[in-house]
Amino acid sequence: MGRIRRFTIGNPINTEAVVQEIPVEQGAFPYFTRVQGIELKSDGDSQETMVQKDYLSYQMGPEDKVYGLGENVRGIDKRGWVYESNCSDDPHHTEGKRSLYGAHNFLVVAGAKVFGVFLDYPGKLTLDIGYEDMDEIRITPKDWNMDLYILEGEGVLGIVESFRQLIGRSYIPPKWAFGYGQSRWGYKCEEDIRTVVKGYRENNIPLDSVYMDIDYMERFKDFTIDEGRFPNFPEFVEEMKRQHIHLVPIIDAGVKIEEGYGVYEEGVENGYFCKDEAGKEFTGAVWPGKVHFPDVLNTQARGWFGRKYKFLLDQGIEGFWNDMNEPAIFYSEKNLGKVMKELKSVKNDNMDMWEIFAFKDLVNGLANNPEDYKSFYHNMDGVQVRHDKVHNLYGYGMTRAAGEAFEELEPEKRILIFSRSSYIGMHRYGGIWMGDNQSWWSHLLLNLKMLPSLNMCGFLYTGADLGGFGADATEDLLLRWLALGVFTPLMRNHAALGTREQECYQFTRTEAFGKLIGIRYGLMPYIYSEYMKAALRGKMLFCPLAFVYPDDKHAREVEDQLLFGESIMIAPVYVQNAKGRYVYLPEPMKLVRLKGMGQIEEEALGQGHYYIEVPLEEVVFFIRPEKIVPYTEPGQYMEEVQGKEIKLLHFASGAAEYELYQDDGYGKDYGNPAHITKLRVEGHTIEMA
Amino acid sequence: MGRIRRFTIGNPINTEAVVQEIPVEQGAFPYFTRVQGIELKSDGDSQETMVQKDYLSYQMGPEDKVYGLGENVRGIDKRGWVYESNCSDDPHHTEGKRSLYGAHNFLVVAGAKVFGVFLDYPGKLTLDIGYEDMDEIRITPKDWNMDLYILEGEGVLGIVESFRQLIGRSYIPPKWAFGYGQSRWGYKCEEDIRTVVKGYRENNIPLDSVYMDIDYMERFKDFTIDEGRFPNFPEFVEEMKRQHIHLVPIIDAGVKIEEGYGVYEEGVENGYFCKDEAGKEFTGAVWPGKVHFPDVLNTQARGWFGRKYKFLLDQGIEGFWNDMNEPAIFYSEKNLGKVMKELKSVKNDNMDMWEIFAFKDLVNGLANNPEDYKSFYHNMDGVQVRHDKVHNLYGYGMTRAAGEAFEELEPEKRILIFSRSSYIGMHRYGGIWMGDNQSWWSHLLLNLKMLPSLNMCGFLYTGADLGGFGADATEDLLLRWLALGVFTPLMRNHAALGTREQECYQFTRTEAFGKLIGIRYGLMPYIYSEYMKAALRGKMLFCPLAFVYPDDKHAREVEDQLLFGESIMIAPVYVQNAKGRYVYLPEPMKLVRLKGMGQIEEEALGQGHYYIEVPLEEVVFFIRPEKIVPYTEPGQYMEEVQGKEIKLLHFASGAAEYELYQDDGYGKDYGNPAHITKLRVEGHTIEMA
Repeated sequence: MGRIRRFTIGNPINTEAVVQEIPVEQGAFPYFTRVQGIELKSDGDSQETMVQKDYLSYQMGPEDKVYGLGENVRGIDKRGWVYESNCSDDPHHTEGKRSLYGAHNFLVVAGAKVFGVFLDYPGKLTLDIGYEDMDEIRITPKDWNMDLYILEGEGVLGIVESFRQLIGRSYIPPKWAFGYGQSRWGYKCEEDIRTVVKGYRENNIPLDSVYMDIDYMERFKDFTIDEGRFPNFPEFVEEMKRQHIHLVPIIDAGVKIEEGYGVYEEGVENGYFCKDEAGKEFTGAVWPGKVHFPDVLNTQARGWFGRKYKFLLDQGIEGFWNDMNEPAIFYSEKNLGKVMKELKSVKNDNMDMWEIFAFKDLVNGLANNPEDYKSFYHNMDGVQVRHDKVHNLYGYGMTRAAGEAFEELEPEKRILIFSRSSYIGMHRYGGIWMGDNQSWWSHLLLNLKMLPSLNMCGFLYTGADLGGFGADATEDLLLRWLALGVFTPLMRNHAALGTREQECYQFTRTEAFGKLIGIRYGLMPYIYSEYMKAALRGKMLFCPLAFVYPDDKHAREVEDQLLFGESIMIAPVYVQNAKGRYVYLPEPMKLVRLKGMGQIEEEALGQGHYYIEVPLEEVVFFIRPEKIVPYTEPGQYMEEVQGKEIKLLHFASGAAEYELYQDDGYGKDYGNPAHITKLRVEGHTIEMA
Repeated sequence: MGRIRRFTIGNPINTEAVVQEIPVEQGAFPYFTRVQGIELKSDGDSQETMVQKDYLSYQMGPEDKVYGLGENVRGIDKRGWVYESNCSDDPHHTEGKRSLYGAHNFLVVAGAKVFGVFLDYPGKLTLDIGYEDMDEIRITPKDWNMDLYILEGEGVLGIVESFRQLIGRSYIPPKWAFGYGQSRWGYKCEEDIRTVVKGYRENNIPLDSVYMDIDYMERFKDFTIDEGRFPNFPEFVEEMKRQHIHLVPIIDAGVKIEEGYGVYEEGVENGYFCKDEAGKEFTGAVWPGKVHFPDVLNTQARGWFGRKYKFLLDQGIEGFWNDMNEPAIFYSEKNLGKVMKELKSVKNDNMDMWEIFAFKDLVNGLANNPEDYKSFYHNMDGVQVRHDKVHNLYGYGMTRAAGEAFEELEPEKRILIFSRSSYIGMHRYGGIWMGDNQSWWSHLLLNLKMLPSLNMCGFLYTGADLGGFGADATEDLLLRWLALGVFTPLMRNHAALGTREQECYQFTRTEAFGKLIGIRYGLMPYIYSEYMKAALRGKMLFCPLAFVYPDDKHAREVEDQLLFGESIMIAPVYVQNAKGRYVYLPEPMKLVRLKGMGQIEEEALGQGHYYIEVPLEEVVFFIRPEKIVPYTEPGQYMEEVQGKEIKLLHFASGAAEYELYQDDGYGKDYGNPAHITKLRVEGHTIEMA
């Protein structure tokens, strides 16, 4: 294994990101130089100001690539932009953004020197990867209190594997959570959900779960059910289970302030909410209106909040998604008062342009205001810490609350949990989805690019909102996106209120949708085995070609193909109206073309560049030499696939082996050797196309 | 030539988009069916409502492609989205948008049937090109008063050429306007501009013009100069000319309301501004604060406004850009009053979520409010027309005002003029830039894709803000974008206030920038010749491969390469960190690699697919068989290039000819045969790589 060195700067807050106890090294850390001084900097408008600079610097070589940073915009190679670890509720993931919902401060520099660095720091961290200067990395924390881990080892993969050991085993969901799920912000009642299930079942499009967004709750109160909309919720959960559907409710971070609401009253009584400077509960507003935020960085409060999930577990629920946990704040009570006062002082009829812009900024600056994040505190087991200093831990804390409680409440059973906001360490307690994306073709590609970056940081159970959350989806976009989603552990179609309905049956090519999603179920023996092995062995599930073929000059450049597990390379189409795409094979591979699981075409191809046609209704992937892909007949839901005869696709000239992982999908005896079945094929001579 | 049929529905407003008098056909128009009826439509949130439908329908075949629509988001093939012709000041050109700044209602369907349609309609028009139903075009006007032209001819190119004849000759700028220009919203005074010129000249990066954004004016008043910042403007214009720099000031649509300001007073006195229902001048607010809008759809008012440009022409100015002419309205006096009243009625301390969102919508809905566009009127030479019915003509009218005035004021001289907003017809009076884009890689590609769509609609003098207007540019983005910009008629680097400074000399690779932009100047004999011939002969300057190689199945699919003029195919790199890209050659071509004009490498390649490496500092293009590319040594500005020895790049096996167009660059005797020089090469045997 590789070598990990830990350096401590100042007095870091313990994030519990890592699980290995690494002794602190004395002396200077390698690779980076701390640069301090005064810089004359233009503000972009012909004004020059003196700026204090104080950052860690690394000089990149022209061929260096930089991998990692988990959930983020831009490429697999992160070079050429400045990122900020600052968990943000911002649904417009354009190229100009610097932060998404997670903070994943691990990166690997791969060039003449190959090393990894993990900055265990829960405040706002700026990572300039060749933005100010194309050839320099500049890392700037808000204050100088952090643990810095330097990792070295055998290539990028070796370093990533060391890191994954350092941070501990990734979360494993129940097997049903690998089935296809449908979600929409807008399903309001039993009947809405029945309509969805009926739409899928009648059109023979597989489905395993329906997600319940905020409307199932009574006035958006966590751990409540609106009884008008769901008169007998446990019975409805049962009704759905009889149709092999799991309901997955959302849980939001903020707890509504309402007299008589138990969660609120208990929280206040026990001091479990975040407090302002004066020691009074901090009041923000989210969906329920005014809320307090559970202090999930406090052990007692976290335990209390986690045990609240029992309310839904007891009604038959087996999965959850944690949302709004950056935490998103639409406004704070304090700031709204200030803004309203300012607005009311504006004279109506004579606003000049700068006044009108200031006015707009005031209103639009109500949400997720940095000043609000500086105005409340956590009680980190005795130590009062201002929120902005640990901002990036909030979603982690909330999901850890759930994860720890599930261990206590359901010790024998896996419960599905994934989160919007995250920090490294949270990957042990739950998955993440890639946040509120848009129905844009560019977000299909972004989805692909985030997969390996997230895997590097321990997040294996992940996926994007297929079809896109915001904006209007088109039928072709959804078909193409599903052809990538077939491979992502979380395979969920999710859309926002007010956008076009994008359940598969809303479009005309229902047969194509059924076949496409059927491929997910047919490939489940492979998908599940690869997931389990990646989690249990600390491996990448999705891997850039660069990591596996580091000496192949062209493979190093490929940013739109991925290796998926040990046998498969994927190369989805992500351009509208494209009939196909270019694909690079770094070694001979077998092209597998699936027109549904019932019609499989195979073709052996030599190393090199190809233009591959991929019709809208098909899934194409490539099998690596001497590798096997177990599959089965598809089904309409996971239970229908379970136990079906295993068949093998392969590209073996000699004898090849595959470790199939099979278990009941619920239990936690992951390491039981009985779960592994060795599959073997005797290959034959292969004719290259 | 092709066949053009005109059908008139209702009582169309005469937009003067076309210059040919086509008699109106009686009877039903071909291809489209008008579909009327009631449709049950879900609103996306489980509510179904009855919707009145009334649209023109065309059933597309699976292989049909749809070209055109000028300035717009998405692909060269417009299939798979819904567009709205509704000129909009919206700088976020994401995939989910439906309108940009122009309204270009010409499209060509290319499939089993090939035909063009031009919907001459100046109101809001919805063009659903396979959005609701992947296989149907649905065109919905706001009301049924339009001229519908159906075009048939020899292939897509034949149809486009017919259309270009129908709409008249494209605008021709002075030759210096093909030089490279630098712009930034933020240059405030003489000294700022001198700094820019010095930055370019000292670093040997060519430059021909500096653009003056709104700050040069006195309180943003059109046709004024701030004397504090420009104490002697004519002298400063001269000083710049001595350095071979043209200053290009901006003109905005709104005229500031200010006592004593001549333009305002004359406009009111003569009734030249748009009026509200009561006949009072309509008051909106833009940069100057409260303004009136000149009624540029009225012949008298248009003539008056156009002649105002004389104020700057008289001071030595030879070029302008017209902005904010959708027209953009930050708020209307009437609506602001209403909004402020509503805001002040809000109770401070108990806003629920829907109230806070309504509150935000109210404030953010102040700008470009559709209700405001319904609240003022034009006097179209005696007929009162509500603005929203002719909204898409405003930018056209403003630029026509300038264009017509230049003919009158400077009959012997070309004046540079381009606009943000436009409608077909305006292409005769000026160019357009592609609006307020962003420093995104995706906008580099969007820039490429818009070029042929705009050419189809008559807009030849065009280009995007190189490096991107909004958001922060990176050095590599600017280099790659310039490598495309080398070929676009308008080659301007422009950036917004508050974004990173992106003048080429702000980065480290100044030599590379100098060489890249030098290539523009070196290729000028070809670029200028091709522009002039395209304008004078009504041809495409940038052409999709599909138009030229309609029988090549793969060429039909290519959306990221273009033919530029008769000899060149371009294939720029538009992906960050990419070392090269795939290129398809539909026929044998010669690859030309320019490491600056001084170092030219050539390689003959056969038909087929290639992966071509393109370093950041190089420009690569391809020469078609039997074609010639004249070039010259580069210079630091256009006058330095003029008259230099012409050299030839070519890919000729036999004898090949090229028509070089040369003139003084200012005069208007375009058709003078002396401007054409026939160049000829005797080819030689070509060895393919």
